[in-house]
Amino acid sequence: MATDGTGQTPPALPRTHIVGAGLIGASIGIGLVAEGWDVTIEDRDADATRLAHSIGAGRSLAPGDTPQVVIVAVPPSAAASVVADSLRAFPGAIVTDVASIKAPIAAAAHNSGHGERYVGSHPMAGREISGGLAAQGDLFKARPWVLCPNGAPADAIALIRMLPQALQCDVVVMDAQAHDNAVARVSHAPQVAASAVAAALGTLSPTDVALAGQGLRDVTRIAATDAGMWADIARLNHHALVATLDHIIGDLEDVKEADDIGEALTDLIERGRIEVARIPGKHGGAQRDYTAVTVIVPDEAGQLLRLLSDVTAVGVNVEDIAIEHSPRQPVGLTTLYVDPTRATELTAVLSDKDWEIAAS
Amino acid sequence: MATDGTGQTPPALPRTHIVGAGLIGASIGIGLVAEGWDVTIEDRDADATRLAHSIGAGRSLAPGDTPQVVIVAVPPSAAASVVADSLRAFPGAIVTDVASIKAPIAAAAHNSGHGERYVGSHPMAGREISGGLAAQGDLFKARPWVLCPNGAPADAIALIRMLPQALQCDVVVMDAQAHDNAVARVSHAPQVAASAVAAALGTLSPTDVALAGQGLRDVTRIAATDAGMWADIARLNHHALVATLDHIIGDLEDVKEADDIGEALTDLIERGRIEVARIPGKHGGAQRDYTAVTVIVPDEAGQLLRLLSDVTAVGVNVEDIAIEHSPRQPVGLTTLYVDPTRATELTAVLSDKDWEIAAS
Repeated sequence: MATDGTGQTPPALPRTHIVGAGLIGASIGIGLVAEGWDVTIEDRDADATRLAHSIGAGRSLAPGDTPQVVIVAVPPSAAASVVADSLRAFPGAIVTDVASIKAPIAAAAHNSGHGERYVGSHPMAGREISGGLAAQGDLFKARPWVLCPNGAPADAIALIRMLPQALQCDVVVMDAQAHDNAVARVSHAPQVAASAVAAALGTLSPTDVALAGQGLRDVTRIAATDAGMWADIARLNHHALVATLDHIIGDLEDVKEADDIGEALTDLIERGRIEVARIPGKHGGAQRDYTAVTVIVPDEAGQLLRLLSDVTAVGVNVEDIAIEHSPRQPVGLTTLYVDPTRATELTAVLSDKDWEIAAS
Repeated sequence: MATDGTGQTPPALPRTHIVGAGLIGASIGIGLVAEGWDVTIEDRDADATRLAHSIGAGRSLAPGDTPQVVIVAVPPSAAASVVADSLRAFPGAIVTDVASIKAPIAAAAHNSGHGERYVGSHPMAGREISGGLAAQGDLFKARPWVLCPNGAPADAIALIRMLPQALQCDVVVMDAQAHDNAVARVSHAPQVAASAVAAALGTLSPTDVALAGQGLRDVTRIAATDAGMWADIARLNHHALVATLDHIIGDLEDVKEADDIGEALTDLIERGRIEVARIPGKHGGAQRDYTAVTVIVPDEAGQLLRLLSDVTAVGVNVEDIAIEHSPRQPVGLTTLYVDPTRATELTAVLSDKDWEIAAS
């Protein structure tokens, strides 16, 4: 084992067993193996187990193996029982799981009588994909990895914290119920709302739907998701999801029933603006207000590159980009979000370089 | 006047008067003047009028001027009365307006007794900005411009159609009430829902809110808007907006009240998926399924350019981009949406060029 620059031996890497070789389990395995960890991995499906071994996500659990960490990476509906089983089957191990709901699993760990050896995890991958074949070691890199210690002792927490550290995740420590309440509001209810906004398009003709702009595309982007694990998630986070839907329904009803719908909508928009400004931007700072510069870009390979070249030549960093294709024309509108103090200069330089600025 | 390649004289450009010199009126004026039209423009605010004249949005209306087209570009709440006034004041003109709600204004035009000289317009600018100072001639270029003829004769429609044609807009002809129903669903209700999802974040701590991913950012992006004209819009489109909110609330209630919340959410997601697939993609075709390739990009000027260079070198066109900044790390995740048949090759080439692929 390598030593660090101080000549001291870093802490030993815990022997780690992964239960479940789907996308999440296999990706964690690949990532840990790449960092030199001794990883075993097993799935109740023998083909999935063989695949995980063949792609370097870990080896077979051998008789006499005594894992120090067990990671339960099974679908949310099975996590509680597999965590309880694992706490009994591996009495020398600290057990974690990767389900996106934490309180019911913490309760099951507690009820098993071995709750002091359970620390919940929620590694937040950005995209919904599935299956061991899609696994890759850096699926979670630079993403939040929530730890819910639920009263576990410090050494147990420190051991489980080595996982997100090895995978270069952003560690966030939270109470399990606080986590579930939070994801109801930042993830689960937004999915329900986006799907409901999309479903309301059902009465429209194709001509009507073609009036859609970037706003509708943004709001409904996640409505294109597979139902996948959402049924499990909704069942396991029933209480927090219902409370959030109640809040949202209440606000929609207030607009709908108001004597003055204009005043009610203005009030809701003002309240929403305050909250949306709290969603963190880059580097954990408050979200900055960027200035949008919208450029007309011919819909040809290389044009976006040419635009970015011209922007970079000015030394302006692009904080975000939105591309909107025009339904009937061979051009797209590309909106660059940039430092407000540089927007005027950027607009002038791009105009000089014959870019058509649609709005800035 | 120039002749076209056939040697024939193109149709004469109609003398055009614009009532209202805010962003929309002044931008249309600049665009038409640039195309050689004789444009007059006036605002009830003398400063706005002078500004419009000084930036080339048109000249003063002189005694004896007889406009053939009058464009009413005033806030939605004033549009109905100013259209009726303009129909009386300019008996030789076809009158249009630019408000984002069409049925109440068509009704006012009809009630004025001069409805046969009114053709409604809704030029759909992509972004909410305001004030004559921000005006530019191509604000509407490549955007939809809806025409609502409401039974006006063909020559009146043809005259008003010259406006979006001169400004290179995408002309869409619709019934006024169908337009209002459609925008309730593709624009107004999505704004209400996005603001309600954002407002529901109000119970969360900063740590909770930091769990937000790209899904929440997409759903709530338009919740950062100014309330601006939304009060007017909601009042004027009250009936269609309430009907749409009813639909959305009904779907949310169905999930909330279901005996099996998982089954109810799966049903809603499936219905939403079908509808979101109907939102047109580029060139009016059905939205294609692109493959997402997510790359870890250091958060430094020029890195995005380097990535796009490498992508372009492979000859792969980037159909869309999403940039997600990591709250606590100096890297961002950039997701490129590309032709599914090219994604594997692209991923391989980018890996060769030392890009870290987070998911594809």
